[in-house]
Amino acid sequence: MPVLTIQGERGVSAVHVGGRLADLPGLIPVERSVIVTDSRVFELYGHLFPACPVIAMGRGEGAKTLETVQRVYERLAALEAQRSTFLAGIGGGIVCDVAGFVAATYMRGMRCGLVATTLLAQVDAAVGGKNGVNLGGFKNMVGTIRQPEFVICDGALLASLPRAEVQCGLAEIVKHAAIADAGLFSFLEEEGQRLLDLDPQALARVVGDSVRIKAAVVGRDEGEHGERRTLNFGHTFGHAIEKTCGLSHGAAVSLGMRLAVRFSVQRGLLAPQVADRLERLLGSLGLPLHLPEGRGAAIGEALRQDKKREGREVHFVLLDRIGQARVEPLPLEAVEAFLAQEVR
Amino acid sequence: MPVLTIQGERGVSAVHVGGRLADLPGLIPVERSVIVTDSRVFELYGHLFPACPVIAMGRGEGAKTLETVQRVYERLAALEAQRSTFLAGIGGGIVCDVAGFVAATYMRGMRCGLVATTLLAQVDAAVGGKNGVNLGGFKNMVGTIRQPEFVICDGALLASLPRAEVQCGLAEIVKHAAIADAGLFSFLEEEGQRLLDLDPQALARVVGDSVRIKAAVVGRDEGEHGERRTLNFGHTFGHAIEKTCGLSHGAAVSLGMRLAVRFSVQRGLLAPQVADRLERLLGSLGLPLHLPEGRGAAIGEALRQDKKREGREVHFVLLDRIGQARVEPLPLEAVEAFLAQEVR
Repeated sequence: MPVLTIQGERGVSAVHVGGRLADLPGLIPVERSVIVTDSRVFELYGHLFPACPVIAMGRGEGAKTLETVQRVYERLAALEAQRSTFLAGIGGGIVCDVAGFVAATYMRGMRCGLVATTLLAQVDAAVGGKNGVNLGGFKNMVGTIRQPEFVICDGALLASLPRAEVQCGLAEIVKHAAIADAGLFSFLEEEGQRLLDLDPQALARVVGDSVRIKAAVVGRDEGEHGERRTLNFGHTFGHAIEKTCGLSHGAAVSLGMRLAVRFSVQRGLLAPQVADRLERLLGSLGLPLHLPEGRGAAIGEALRQDKKREGREVHFVLLDRIGQARVEPLPLEAVEAFLAQEVR
Repeated sequence: MPVLTIQGERGVSAVHVGGRLADLPGLIPVERSVIVTDSRVFELYGHLFPACPVIAMGRGEGAKTLETVQRVYERLAALEAQRSTFLAGIGGGIVCDVAGFVAATYMRGMRCGLVATTLLAQVDAAVGGKNGVNLGGFKNMVGTIRQPEFVICDGALLASLPRAEVQCGLAEIVKHAAIADAGLFSFLEEEGQRLLDLDPQALARVVGDSVRIKAAVVGRDEGEHGERRTLNFGHTFGHAIEKTCGLSHGAAVSLGMRLAVRFSVQRGLLAPQVADRLERLLGSLGLPLHLPEGRGAAIGEALRQDKKREGREVHFVLLDRIGQARVEPLPLEAVEAFLAQEVR
């Protein structure tokens, strides 16, 4: 199985694409480990876990809070977990984000590894070292960047995913293709249905490509001072949409990518037919292309408060062509004006 | 004024010994900074602060909690603070610990610098990059290690310190002398009264020496895998005493150092008369030498839960002579047995 490595500032992360949950005991000191998971993952796969104490947190974006983090800290303290205890997160993006943050901060840093159980976590959330939780309505306002020692991406775990969660992952895979890999983009166009049908070989291909793309970008710019910002393609609008429209992350990113390519066309960077091509791909994967009516003002307000704004400028990710992105510092007003024209 | 630098894994920290609070505007982007302080420091020195928004937190060990951290996050979000905003902590050890942790985690890391207003913060808490808060009864259970860009140690701010807080700082200075600097130890023996009387020149000498010692140790072992553990001299027992006896950190560390030298004598490492010499110094500085009666069992229980225990071993700091410490991994049972024999 391919192991891709990410060289972080303070350690290397090994991403085991095509690894198995059953490999976990070989990667951790089982007798000195604690598992963080959520109730659903535990129900489905708990019988495959190594024999470690398990902390099961709540599910969904609403569980991605400091309150959850505090409860995990308290459970670790009750288990007499030490700085040398290994924390293994097994779950989707939210479990991985919470487990990574707890491990980065409990006793100023425990060892940590992740088993990603959703497509979104395997291609994005679990890879690259970002962790953290939301604060009030703001996504990922609190966290750190710290590479887990390993990430296991087990394709067998994807068989139980609801279609909506598969689509969430596909949105991020489309993102990776759009910014960095025209060949992957063509594959998605040709094999979208196989992916929606959870064909293991097709999934293995797109997970492997996504991890390869993300690992390379993060290895060159872990701290997000430059190139890593391209991974926010579709996310500046996407986060604002997610926050205000009650949509899933994947649906919001799909809508955000559609807006971002239209913005790229308007700014003279991208041919209109390429924007249409992205739209067709998103549509063929069952991802939404149209925003709910009447949310424009709320999205604009959320955008204004978005963390990616730095001073009065937004580092906005635009597309030059399929496989090539650029980050442009744009005045917030220019982004707001485009949004006002596109969205009511 | 001497500037001592600490090379951390992810950045350099410049400690300005003999710097001034009034130097702060030259070290931060005033128009993009936020100050974290406490109500008393703001009352005493707020008129000297640069013109930045101020977040005043509560005072005392009881304010060193995740709840305080969350309130500071929320105030930062309300101020629309960004990743590029500078967070300046102005206060004693608790303010510095909270501000450092918030800066390490708000939006995955803001810029940060500290102005240390107490002797304890200037010689210990603000220097070396450790930050964090308590969890339930456990000290510093949550935090990170991340160097602030600068620390200003302004001697003029010490004039307002109550004697008990001066003694807290002196306990840590005695610790530095005991583990690393026989010359500083002699100076403390000779000039203790001048220090208690807040003589500026004597204070400048011991602050400079302490920062030099701590900066050197941290520069060689930021992550506390080896030598940095020597800075825990007196703290294994000290933390357990602080938690269970309602004493200040300095008083508890004084008692912890007395126990640690007696343990060093019992283990055949230290001459008894050297242990007596440390006791006399602590006594001359008005630091306690005798524990309250009947706390032995509670201290033992707290010790058992102490974070420095790793598995069944304690990395215990013993003294070979004045100016030379050693870290020995000891079975927890050996440490508990010594404690049971010494303390009722």
